[in-house]
Amino acid sequence: MRPRVLSGMRPTGSLHLGHYHGALKNWVRLQDQYDCFFFVADWHALTTHYEERDVIEKNVYEMVIDWLAAGLDPEKSTIFIQSRLPEHAELFTLLAMGTPLGWLERVPTYKDQIDKLKDRDLATYGFLGYPLLQAADILIYKASYVPVGEDQASHVELTRECARRFNSLYGRAPDFAEQVAATLAKLSKDDQRYFEKQRKAFGETGAAEALAKGEGILKKAAAQVEGWTAHDSELLAGHLKGSGKSILVEPQALYTENARLPGLDGAKMSKSYGNAVLMRDDPDTVAKKIRGMVTDPARVRRTDPGTPEKCPVWALHKVYSDEATQEWACKGCTTAGIGCLECKQPVIDAIVKEQQPWRERAAAFTANPKQVHWIVEMGTERARTVARQTMKDVREAMGISY
Amino acid sequence: MRPRVLSGMRPTGSLHLGHYHGALKNWVRLQDQYDCFFFVADWHALTTHYEERDVIEKNVYEMVIDWLAAGLDPEKSTIFIQSRLPEHAELFTLLAMGTPLGWLERVPTYKDQIDKLKDRDLATYGFLGYPLLQAADILIYKASYVPVGEDQASHVELTRECARRFNSLYGRAPDFAEQVAATLAKLSKDDQRYFEKQRKAFGETGAAEALAKGEGILKKAAAQVEGWTAHDSELLAGHLKGSGKSILVEPQALYTENARLPGLDGAKMSKSYGNAVLMRDDPDTVAKKIRGMVTDPARVRRTDPGTPEKCPVWALHKVYSDEATQEWACKGCTTAGIGCLECKQPVIDAIVKEQQPWRERAAAFTANPKQVHWIVEMGTERARTVARQTMKDVREAMGISY
Ligand code: SF4
Ligand code: SF4
Repeated sequence: MRPRVLSGMRPTGSLHLGHYHGALKNWVRLQDQYDCFFFVADWHALTTHYEERDVIEKNVYEMVIDWLAAGLDPEKSTIFIQSRLPEHAELFTLLAMGTPLGWLERVPTYKDQIDKLKDRDLATYGFLGYPLLQAADILIYKASYVPVGEDQASHVELTRECARRFNSLYGRAPDFAEQVAATLAKLSKDDQRYFEKQRKAFGETGAAEALAKGEGILKKAAAQVEGWTAHDSELLAGHLKGSGKSILVEPQALYTENARLPGLDGAKMSKSYGNAVLMRDDPDTVAKKIRGMVTDPARVRRTDPGTPEKCPVWALHKVYSDEATQEWACKGCTTAGIGCLECKQPVIDAIVKEQQPWRERAAAFTANPKQVHWIVEMGTERARTVARQTMKDVREAMGISY
Repeated sequence: MRPRVLSGMRPTGSLHLGHYHGALKNWVRLQDQYDCFFFVADWHALTTHYEERDVIEKNVYEMVIDWLAAGLDPEKSTIFIQSRLPEHAELFTLLAMGTPLGWLERVPTYKDQIDKLKDRDLATYGFLGYPLLQAADILIYKASYVPVGEDQASHVELTRECARRFNSLYGRAPDFAEQVAATLAKLSKDDQRYFEKQRKAFGETGAAEALAKGEGILKKAAAQVEGWTAHDSELLAGHLKGSGKSILVEPQALYTENARLPGLDGAKMSKSYGNAVLMRDDPDTVAKKIRGMVTDPARVRRTDPGTPEKCPVWALHKVYSDEATQEWACKGCTTAGIGCLECKQPVIDAIVKEQQPWRERAAAFTANPKQVHWIVEMGTERARTVARQTMKDVREAMGISY
């Protein structure tokens, strides 16, 4: 069983090169190594687009086609739509009961966005709860990893806090203490002492090292102690983490180097800024857009030398061009040896070439919408199986499984 | 079709006479007149009892038995458990997206309770969202009426605001205006003018009279205009209310006179104060409890005259005794003609008598738990049918029914 990875994307428009290099490319890579669950975060889109019903409806299946075009393989990845699984909302609601308001108000992205987008009436209850719904999305699949940009690290931390709180409240059987004592007694006196020492250290400092050492004892016991069961390991792992039995899994953030593409105006590429090259723009559009792209403002005339570091086209070269081309562009720019249009051509060519397989795959899927629906259908049912099992565990642990 | 009434109760302990006279008695009455949906609000119990898993589990079916004992008839009323219907959570989540934080922070019961119960870590996200989850509970069954105490009037108002906001955002088809014009044209010129006048009046003043007059025109049209359809009525009803097509129904508060019973110590009867007579206390316990009940503190000795208005036993007389007995008690008290124990006896007798049918019914249901489960099962399935249909309408209206 490969560890599970979960990630989602909001269906708020056609995907562009920024999405590809910022996330999708990474997803395609991850699917060979992990049990990947990728979902269309349509409820999340509603937190910011509540009043624009058409935006979401139009983009759901188009986005899935963009994903498939980029190379997501439905044989490897589970592709599904969040709103098709009311279980997410159920877990969100249950977690809400035990989540202090302060946890959510302190999430850095919350205050940032409230400030940034103050023209919209964004301070809704759902918007405040955005990271909690995200926590439910992750926890319901017991995902081990979540690929994140650095600005979302706090969301994963919140998810971990939610899981920890839930496990410590509901993970303990009524006779937990006795069970722990009985299981500890199976270890040698030395191992008992060592394990308890690590447990205390982890409880006080949260040091990963102490956790690892404690888990080492459990691995050793599993290999050497006669009559040691998987349940024993699980029980003491819970004891070690101070969390009782682990019902919800604390996910880890999976940091990956993601290129942040500049848009046509030099700002971050974003649909809402109108500065994006779309994944499925045709070659002519790509050429036209890149030709119109801003460059180093100091190069007013062809004969003015430029500074690549001040030019967003150069940032694209760094993503798209080999070393020789980069050298050519850099030298040509600083010496005014080439014009900007000349400099842009290899970028245009590289983008068009990169898009070629996407275009082909997208054409096939666009011609066969039933297949896309079927892929989502299969993915949704696969996700549902996992989500339902988790909710069964959750309800049982909470004592509401009558 | 009788109009639908919805109400719920949190399973946080055995029900007492305060619950009966404050709510249950009214429920029993309502079921003859309305299509009643009564639910065990176990998720709501979690908003205040998140950390006490046993409280809820123990009380769910016991509470249903109290309901049945009081006279709820599963042939007339739909009895179900909130947590069995994830659709409530789904609607809660969707409504959350469009609900400004201020709406919830302004709910009077929120600030009150935060103050009152500040020893608990109650300021959770779920606790703030309590009235919104309640709104979802109500709206998902398209309930017309909600029986409320006065302190909950603000919750019904919030529910109405949610429904209005939802209907006005999602209730309009893209060609709503044209449809309205075409339908209005089916009316006579006079009726058109009159209808539009009432619509404007209602929009400006919210006068129920204008609404009723406008609806009168629609009834007339349904009876007289050739080719008039139900869709025409619905469309213009939405136009009249300024809400587009009504997808969610704005419920009305159903105020009823509910006796507020004093507890044994004179404070409001409440399980948590330990001053309650339980619905299923046996006669000896009732006698013992009432005999120990506080009385007018001025009646220190048997020979001291008392003031009934200062005595909680007198409040019970007003609920339980006929006029003659009340007169006897009042006179006996003010003249020191009777002792307090004497005065309490008719109350004890009346309570024991009131409880008699409850005890009998409860005994039958307790002896047959399968029947109780079956009643809840049937109710839950009936509720599910309605909830699913509403969610289908909601998803379609929001454009997320792919
Ligand atoms: S030559 Fe290239 S790097 Fe230099 S300013 Fe023009 S586009 Fe930018
Ligand atoms: S006589 Fe009755 S009403 Fe008067 S103080 Fe005693 S119990 Fe109360």
